[in-house]
Amino acid sequence: MSDILGKVGENVRIHANVKLGKHVTIGDNTIVYENVEIGNSCFIGPNCILGEPLAAFYHEKDYHNPPLKIGNNSIIRSDSIIYAGSTFGEVFETGHKVTIRECSQFGVHCRVGTLSDIQGYVKVGDYCRFHSSVFVAQTSIIKDYVWLLPHVVLTNDPHPPSDCIQGPTVEEYAVVGAGAIIMARVKIGRDSLVGAQALVNKDVPAYTVVAGVPAKVLCSVHDIKCKEGRLEKPYPWREHYSKGYPWEDEEENVAK
Amino acid sequence: MSDILGKVGENVRIHANVKLGKHVTIGDNTIVYENVEIGNSCFIGPNCILGEPLAAFYHEKDYHNPPLKIGNNSIIRSDSIIYAGSTFGEVFETGHKVTIRECSQFGVHCRVGTLSDIQGYVKVGDYCRFHSSVFVAQTSIIKDYVWLLPHVVLTNDPHPPSDCIQGPTVEEYAVVGAGAIIMARVKIGRDSLVGAQALVNKDVPAYTVVAGVPAKVLCSVHDIKCKEGRLEKPYPWREHYSKGYPWEDEEENVAK
Amino acid sequence: MSDILGKVGENVRIHANVKLGKHVTIGDNTIVYENVEIGNSCFIGPNCILGEPLAAFYHEKDYHNPPLKIGNNSIIRSDSIIYAGSTFGEVFETGHKVTIRECSQFGVHCRVGTLSDIQGYVKVGDYCRFHSSVFVAQTSIIKDYVWLLPHVVLTNDPHPPSDCIQGPTVEEYAVVGAGAIIMARVKIGRDSLVGAQALVNKDVPAYTVVAGVPAKVLCSVHDIKCKEGRLEKPYPWREHYSKGYPWEDEEENVAK
Repeated sequence: MSDILGKVGENVRIHANVKLGKHVTIGDNTIVYENVEIGNSCFIGPNCILGEPLAAFYHEKDYHNPPLKIGNNSIIRSDSIIYAGSTFGEVFETGHKVTIRECSQFGVHCRVGTLSDIQGYVKVGDYCRFHSSVFVAQTSIIKDYVWLLPHVVLTNDPHPPSDCIQGPTVEEYAVVGAGAIIMARVKIGRDSLVGAQALVNKDVPAYTVVAGVPAKVLCSVHDIKCKEGRLEKPYPWREHYSKGYPWEDEEENVAK
Repeated sequence: MSDILGKVGENVRIHANVKLGKHVTIGDNTIVYENVEIGNSCFIGPNCILGEPLAAFYHEKDYHNPPLKIGNNSIIRSDSIIYAGSTFGEVFETGHKVTIRECSQFGVHCRVGTLSDIQGYVKVGDYCRFHSSVFVAQTSIIKDYVWLLPHVVLTNDPHPPSDCIQGPTVEEYAVVGAGAIIMARVKIGRDSLVGAQALVNKDVPAYTVVAGVPAKVLCSVHDIKCKEGRLEKPYPWREHYSKGYPWEDEEENVAK
Repeated sequence: MSDILGKVGENVRIHANVKLGKHVTIGDNTIVYENVEIGNSCFIGPNCILGEPLAAFYHEKDYHNPPLKIGNNSIIRSDSIIYAGSTFGEVFETGHKVTIRECSQFGVHCRVGTLSDIQGYVKVGDYCRFHSSVFVAQTSIIKDYVWLLPHVVLTNDPHPPSDCIQGPTVEEYAVVGAGAIIMARVKIGRDSLVGAQALVNKDVPAYTVVAGVPAKVLCSVHDIKCKEGRLEKPYPWREHYSKGYPWEDEEENVAK
């Protein structure tokens, strides 16, 4: 099957002013709209839409599609839709059926899981991992090395519907457990842990574990133990987990 | 890119007895099955399936696809699947990857967000807004001006699995917060507010705020304040929020 | 529309070494990668991807796509993606936009609902029903006759991120309510009932009802009553519900 790699598939539509880097793969049936730039060695799966036009497209006669840039060595899996006007650093990776709306900025080495819906105007740092079916409301801010586990929801309206929109801020190394909901404007501190199914309506201090509906402080992350005894201290996770992170090679070097 | 508008794209399949209004756009790769009627000035995005056949199609030799009607000035975004047998009033709008099953009725000016799954045999009033990844079980009833926020789930079986199916009823102007689950047969009163992540297993009175797992009454919607002080009274929301609603223009007129 | 059945649609790509049984339907735009075997009388909808390659495909020069086998009389609805390396027993059925990753085993007569995401390396028994937007983490074990209702999440990491991965085990006839989250390594006993929106972080005994965040034991399933009085005893459900189950015909015979 390696004959697919580095080629443009069948039934592909590439609109005007698209720049493809070297050794780019474009899967069958994919549509690339105007002003998209795809970096070297990127893999774009089948049935994707890149450069999806913004809402103004349906109403404005002189609509201009803002540029979409995807960094080198990225993998966009099949059925994903990425709007015009966003920027992704190198080694960006998505699962399938991902939707990312306009005017968002992602740093390098980020991953967005299958069926996630990123609503636009968000800022995401480097090396973030969003798992499956994650929802990130407009204007959310997510710093480096954050984990959002499956079905996490970040909201942005404190009393919907209104125009008082401001997404949460999730700081470095924070981990948000499966199905947790983070309310508008809340700040999740660095190295904190939000329990699965939590409803977080207050700021979470750094290095703190919260859980429940609504979430309450349980303990420090330093107090968490591994029930199976396989890890002495599960948190801060960056002290034992390095897969795909910049400190992975350092450790290997140390190990040598 | 405006050269796409008002045209039928490439690799489109239009089956027998399909009626297209004036100035209809059909995106690339979209499939329109038998007996679909699309109103004037509708935009159907790429990779959609309209008139998806019902379960009987797989078994019955004489299967007849029931009619699907989409009102004028609607926007169906890419990768959405709408079954045969449903009816949508004018200015209907979907996000991407929406699924709406058979024999459902939507009023005018409704919006269904990306990845929502509407299971069929539902009745939805006018000017409803469903956000992302909303699940609406069969036989649910949703009246006018209702908001269902991201990841809301409406269920219909009080002791699954069984044949005692009856979805909830959500009354006018009610707002259901992100990730809330509404149990079978429950009635959500008009102008009420269901908190995010709530599990609602009892009826909610009109103008009432409920929250928690299971949900309990917190206060009247009139008691809710805007923490940032930008709105004197956030609820009833229809007294300050008018974007896209029939009273939007009235207000503008008043302002003049 | 019956002229679609038993045929390969338009714009279909079938790669090398694909085996199609008798009377197989392949919908328009579907891609079938190498080493896929589709049983007799299967219906594969439009826009599907079967035999999606594993992560190694992007890196390994000598990548070999492991075989995917889909049993006789299965229905894979449109926009579904099934990875290489999995096996499905006969009469397997999916909704739309389902994703099932590699090296999973499903028994006979299973159904996976629209937008579900099965992460691979899972074992699923016979006659299981997963509803819409279900997430099943890698290494989960699900025995026969299990129900996972909409938006259920099974996780596999007790302190993410780590390498201590082990999914839950859900035993025969268990029912997991809408939006419930089952934590890593937890065992859900046979014939038990997990309430909607629950967070289950401890084992659930057989025939037991749990609910809440975190979930606590409420009662025996034998204590549950039907509020409408339509069923004397809703649980164990297998004593009154037979639609699509092996005991369906037996009952009919008894009834005669």
